[in-house]
Formats: sequence, C-alpha cells, structure tokens
Amino acid sequence: MAEEQTEYQGKATMEKITSLAKRRGFVFQSSEIYGGQNGAWDYGPLGIELKNRIARNWWKEMTQLHDDIVGLDAAILMHPRVWEASGHVENFTDPLVDCKKCKSRFRADQIPPENLAEKKCPECGGELTDTRKFNLMFKTHIGAVEEEANIIYLRPETAQGIYVNYKNIIQSNRMKIPFGIAQIGKAFRNEIVTKNFIFRTCEFEQMEMQYFVKPGTDVEWFTEWKKRRWAYYEKLGVKMDQLRWHQHGPDELAHYAKDAYDIEYLFPMGWKELEGIHNRSNYDLSRHAEFSGKDLQYIDQDNNNERYIPFIIETSAGLTRTLLMLLCDAYDEEKVADKGSDDDWRTVLRFHPAIAPITVAVLPLMKKDGLAELAQDIRNELREDFATDYDQGGAIGRRYRRQDEAGTPFCITVDYESKDNQTVTLRFRDSMEQVRVHRTELAARLRDEIKGYQRSK
Amino acid sequence: MAEEQTEYQGKATMEKITSLAKRRGFVFQSSEIYGGQNGAWDYGPLGIELKNRIARNWWKEMTQLHDDIVGLDAAILMHPRVWEASGHVENFTDPLVDCKKCKSRFRADQIPPENLAEKKCPECGGELTDTRKFNLMFKTHIGAVEEEANIIYLRPETAQGIYVNYKNIIQSNRMKIPFGIAQIGKAFRNEIVTKNFIFRTCEFEQMEMQYFVKPGTDVEWFTEWKKRRWAYYEKLGVKMDQLRWHQHGPDELAHYAKDAYDIEYLFPMGWKELEGIHNRSNYDLSRHAEFSGKDLQYIDQDNNNERYIPFIIETSAGLTRTLLMLLCDAYDEEKVADKGSDDDWRTVLRFHPAIAPITVAVLPLMKKDGLAELAQDIRNELREDFATDYDQGGAIGRRYRRQDEAGTPFCITVDYESKDNQTVTLRFRDSMEQVRVHRTELAARLRDEIKGYQRSK
Repeated sequence: MAEEQTEYQGKATMEKITSLAKRRGFVFQSSEIYGGQNGAWDYGPLGIELKNRIARNWWKEMTQLHDDIVGLDAAILMHPRVWEASGHVENFTDPLVDCKKCKSRFRADQIPPENLAEKKCPECGGELTDTRKFNLMFKTHIGAVEEEANIIYLRPETAQGIYVNYKNIIQSNRMKIPFGIAQIGKAFRNEIVTKNFIFRTCEFEQMEMQYFVKPGTDVEWFTEWKKRRWAYYEKLGVKMDQLRWHQHGPDELAHYAKDAYDIEYLFPMGWKELEGIHNRSNYDLSRHAEFSGKDLQYIDQDNNNERYIPFIIETSAGLTRTLLMLLCDAYDEEKVADKGSDDDWRTVLRFHPAIAPITVAVLPLMKKDGLAELAQDIRNELREDFATDYDQGGAIGRRYRRQDEAGTPFCITVDYESKDNQTVTLRFRDSMEQVRVHRTELAARLRDEIKGYQRSK
Repeated sequence: MAEEQTEYQGKATMEKITSLAKRRGFVFQSSEIYGGQNGAWDYGPLGIELKNRIARNWWKEMTQLHDDIVGLDAAILMHPRVWEASGHVENFTDPLVDCKKCKSRFRADQIPPENLAEKKCPECGGELTDTRKFNLMFKTHIGAVEEEANIIYLRPETAQGIYVNYKNIIQSNRMKIPFGIAQIGKAFRNEIVTKNFIFRTCEFEQMEMQYFVKPGTDVEWFTEWKKRRWAYYEKLGVKMDQLRWHQHGPDELAHYAKDAYDIEYLFPMGWKELEGIHNRSNYDLSRHAEFSGKDLQYIDQDNNNERYIPFIIETSAGLTRTLLMLLCDAYDEEKVADKGSDDDWRTVLRFHPAIAPITVAVLPLMKKDGLAELAQDIRNELREDFATDYDQGGAIGRRYRRQDEAGTPFCITVDYESKDNQTVTLRFRDSMEQVRVHRTELAARLRDEIKGYQRSK
C-alpha cells in the first residue's frame, strides 16, 4: 500500500481512479465492446448520479440562491454566423504538421522549434509537411444536401448561446443590470490529443455563468466573482491546499479578455485548470451586434435611458472535469482499526453528502428473522426523499467497505435490537462511528447531518 | 376570448402556447438574432427549470423509486459500428425527391402516388428527380483528416448507448435479471420537415428506460410497463381523457419489435405520439453480439448458470415533447371573479407543483413600511429548499396574474398583519383561495401541499 508519491500530496493516482471508476460503475470507456471511441466516455450508475448532483448543486448555487441569475439551455446546433462573430471559424485552430515518412501527426507548437525550422520529424527524422491550421470545431450538414450553405457546427463552447439570448432574457424576465445567466450543457472539440481519462475529451460538459455589468464596474465584479467561486469549492469540502490561482499572462490572455484567472487543482498529473474566471470586456456583445445587425445595447430605464454594451464577467467550469476533480479529491486509502484481517485497509471516497451518488444505504445485519423485511420497510420510508441503496449480501464489514468505496456517507444497520425497540445504528463513513437512532428520527437526522457536514480528513 | 375550437377540446392552441412560451421565457427560437436556426430551440429561464424538473421527476420515478433500475449517461459520439449493428446506417432513411424546375423537396411517401409515378412536381408540374434514400443521421469527422474511416455520427437515439453498456453495468452494479437501465440525453436527426414548434426538431432530448428480461417473461413485463407508464402520467396530474393508447399495426411495427404501443396525447394539432412502449425482443443485443464479436448472453447464476440473450422492454419518451405536452395540458384561460375589470380573465398554467418552474413566490403587499424587508427575509428562509421568486412591482392582483401565467402554484403575501403576528397569506393558484399561515409553518405546509396535490380543473 505504501507507494512513492513524489509530485502528488494525496494518495490518488490516475491509475487507481480510472480503475475504481470502471469497477464501481462511475465511468466506462465509450462503445467499449467495439474497442472504444476515442475522446468520449460513458457515465455509469454511480457516475451519472454524481454528475447530476454536481450539476444540481452548481445550478442551485447559481440560480436558486441568487436573486439576479437565471438559467438558460441553448441548443448545441446554432446558426453558423454565431461562430463567425465569436471568432471560432477564423481562430479556433491548432497548428498541425504531419511526417510524410512515418505519418505521425504533431501540434506544431508542441515539437522542438529546430525540428519545425528544419522540417524534420522529431520521431523518425523524415520530412514534415507545412504547418496548417486545423479548426477544432466538429462540422456537419443540416438539410438534405451537403453544400457549403448547409454547414453547421457542434458548439465548441456553451457561452455563445447565452450572448445571443441576452436580449430575449432581459425582455421575458425583466432583468436589470447587473444580472447573470447560467447554463449547463455539452460542447464538442475535435481534440487531436485527448488524454488524462476524462480530463480532456472531445465531448464534455460545461457549467458557465455570464454576468452582465456596467462598464467601469467590471473590475469590482470580477474580484467579487473570483471570491464567490473560491468560496464555492470551500463549501463543497474540497481540500483547499490543492487549489490555487493562476493569472493569465500577456501571452495567454485571449484576444477578448481584459483579465483572466484560472482556479487550478492539483490533479495526480499536476496542477491543471478547473475553472476560469474571465473579464471578457464588451467584446462578445459588440461582435454579435456587428454580425447580426441588431442593437444589443442595454437601456438603463432607471438612469435616464442610458445606453451601453455591457461588460461580461464569465465563470466557466467543466462539469465532467469537476467530477474528475471530486473523485481525486475524495479518494482516500486508510488503515482502519481491525488490523491483521483482509480488511485492515479501506478505500473511501469522502464526497460531500450533497453530491454523493448514494446518500444512505440500509443494511440488515442478517437476512433472516425478519431483519431483511424491517430494513426494506425503513428503506421505503426514506427513498422518497433520499437516494438510497439496500444491500443484504455478505458480511456486514464487507458491505460497509463497498459503501465506503462508493462514497456513501451514511449507513443504517438493522439488527436484533431494532426489532425490539425500532432503533437502528447510523454509521458515518468518514469517522466510522456509529450512533443509535430511532427509526422515526432518521429522516430529520440525515437532513441535519447533510446540512452540517464538515470534512474531517 | 371565445374562439372556435373545432378539433381540440381544451383552450390551448399552438399559437397561444408559442406566444406565451416566448413572452415568458419558456422557449426561444435558437440563434434568433441571426434569423433563427431551423430545427433547434433554446429553453429560457422558466423553460429550463420546467425541463429540469420533468427530467428529475422521471429520473426519480425510474431510479430512486425502483430497486431494479439504475442510470446511465452514454456519450453522444459513439463508435460508428454501433450504427451498423443497430441498422441505422442502412435503414434510417427518408425517401426524397426534388423538383428540377422549382427546386422544392418532398418526402416521396408524402406526395400523391400519381405525381410520383409520372415524376411530376405536385407544386409546379415540373420534372421530379428519382427517389433517393436520405439518411437522417448527422455525420461528422473525428480526427484531423476528413476520410471515410473517420466518419462519426451524432446519435439519432439514446437507446444504443444502453445496449452497448449492458455487460459493464451488470458487472459493476451486480444487477440480476430482470433489471432496467434509465437514461436521459440528447439525440439528433436531420429532419427535412421540422414542425409544430418543439414537437419535431433536429435536436431533442429523450428519456428512455430499457428493461432486460428473460425470454418468455417479456409479454408479462410489457403489460406491466404499459400499466406503470400510464400511471405515471396520472400521477403527474395530466388530463387522462387526452391520453390514449395506439397499438402499432403490422405496417408500423419496426423490424425489431414484437409488439409496440404508443401513448398519444391530444395536442392542439391532434393526437400525436408522446411515448412508446416497445417489446424489442432480443434483436438489439443479438445484433451487437454479432457485430462486436462479444458474448452478450446473460448468465443466470441463481439458475445453474443458464445462458440467454435477454429480451428488452423499452419505454421511450421525449423530454422536450413532454415539456410541450405539459405546457398544453396545463394551459387554461379562466373567467375570474372580479368582473368588468381589465383582469376579468386570467391565463393560468396548472402545472403539478413538483414540476412547476417556480414553486413559491413571495410578494410584499407594499414596498414600504418594512414589508419588503420582511418578505425578503421570508423568501430567504425558503430559498434553500424551494424554487422561489420575489416580486414587489405593481398591484398585487397583477402580480398574482404574472405568477399564474408562469404556473407558480403558491404565492405568499406579506401584509401589515404579518408585521404584527408573523402570519402571511398563502394563495393557491388553482382555486385562488387564500389561507393564513404562520411564518414558521410555511416550509412544512408547502411540502404537504406539494405531496398531496390533486388537480381540480
């Protein structure tokens, strides 16, 4: 169990995470029976519950708990002019070169400059092609004829759907600046190099919020949103010493951005971007006004009908990337009390109860003597309000381990005493402590435990 | 207000629904500032809340409330062999003809047979092209070269993602037959004719459950799932006299299906399919076994390791179509008590509280005298557990109407008496009745009202 951990403080490795994810049904390789589809992954029973809960948690934080943010769900297929206005048709490209001899393909910016200058393959020394721009947008055709006019793209980001709907939302929902629009949805990029499991994939999901502000107040709001997004991860119980800020330098800053910070997480493969908070200036709405010919100025009715193109502060997180982060962050191996047995180590996922795929598992100590029936009764009382599991197979210790590995924060065990006095044991995943609770108090107790959860390890 | 309603019993018309949907932010035309994108729609603030709640309600019904059903979320991009095995590459086509003169395009099966025989355009009498098969799958290329080997499709249905993961899920989740796999996700079809608002679109969302059973038990399970799915709509409060069964005749039955029923709803444009319950036999798994070379037999460990390819009972509903159905079903115009005023009619969406976009709106009778602050306090107490709205603008009657039109089932009004004794009025959308409730009892009362809701009109 003792492994060399050089670059990474915790115990998770990508190998362990990938293996656990497959074994327990978090993430499967897409189309695995056909040899797999590169760049795409399928979320299994535990994975989709985790993903749904992360999405709901973010959505609730952004919309339900904010007066000034509403939701949107724009289509993946958008008018192709959108991607001209956004700059993606022209600029969303990777520079590629191929080796004419060994057929290897490289990103020109990722091979040694001398190879590029001499046009010699870094692998075999063969001749390289000229560098060409490769657009990362997936392209398809709509309608029955494949012609230029019918080209349509799979959106490479969700943000543009928000910008083109900004006026619709102001009108239908009587929004006043400052206000935000939140969206969760899929985006697609024809990445030549996909790697690190679900970290960089061709199909992925974003959780984005675009906050529209008056020019001149943008720096203040940028600071405020940096603060709020940092606090969000704290609330989720993430190990805060594995998060850091990275400010984009002049070389990294996108052409539209006035300022940009990433929140980076210390993944097993190193510090990587988890979320970006960007001051996008008035670039996006100005471009869409120009390309659509529509007036996208905001009219401030409370201030003499003052008109301006709002600035936009963007908070953009990957949903599937957040899922990977939370798997890594929750992962722990722990030496437990019952030494010497097969069970002296446990693998445990210390998810916040608000996002754990299963909230509570109900386990009868034995199947016989009516314990199974009583346990099922209790499960049925809880299932309307909680994500429950029921497991009656094998030794109780092994069943606890199975739930630990799935990240289930609470186990309820029904034993012989339960038959006598309707109390059960409530076991806590993190501490492995158990308390006795009366059956009628379970739902309220679970609600309190979820709300008051503090990560201890 | 009195309109001719010939074919439709209720008061909803597609024109009214479309107009309300846009005005109140349920559904917008995609990329509207660029003239719109045919076949795609964007869901606004109320629309995405409604869509999310429908999805969650279905998901909860299928997974949380069933011991034997687990969830899955497969990628949209799948291995292209999947669509060969499923038959889509060969058979998922429409027969198309074009007029050489006026350039109109028709589905060959939808123009008069004599026009087809004489190859004369039904619009202008010009010459028609030969009929050609047009595949409805959107096609794109993955990787940096557009070549045949890199073709990949946008999935035209979500079901195949379940079939190819069936063994993975059995292994990771120790499932035993009979069991089901539920999935919600987007699918894409290059429909030549999109119509009826969000009813038939190129980009849409499905809610599918595939239930794996032992051959010979399939008829019984088929009957059971028909019953359960019918009961589901009853539970959602849908007008049951606007639902009916339609059994597929020999001409309609898909090549894989042993039996198939649709649940149809009486939309404003007539009876249309809402959900299909299909006995798909062992076709799907047999084909995937053949095309992948993998053994997809189930091994029944409780029965001498008996092996068989399971039969599949499918329940397949459109999420976006269900949303349209619920908008139509909830829509009502009602003459209300205060006659003679501008307000003597109201438009009300009678959504079940479990799916209403906003659960409760908090309204101060006046802004002044501390009522606004008290109302905001109460809203803040509720917002962690409920989807709330706050509205302090305009006459109270007009604010009720706005909430009625959004389908908000409960309004809380904070008045001068509230300051004295901390009671508020709780107004019910359907009956417009009001009761006085103490502030501390609001959350519990709302929970009870949601659970006990019965549609009265």
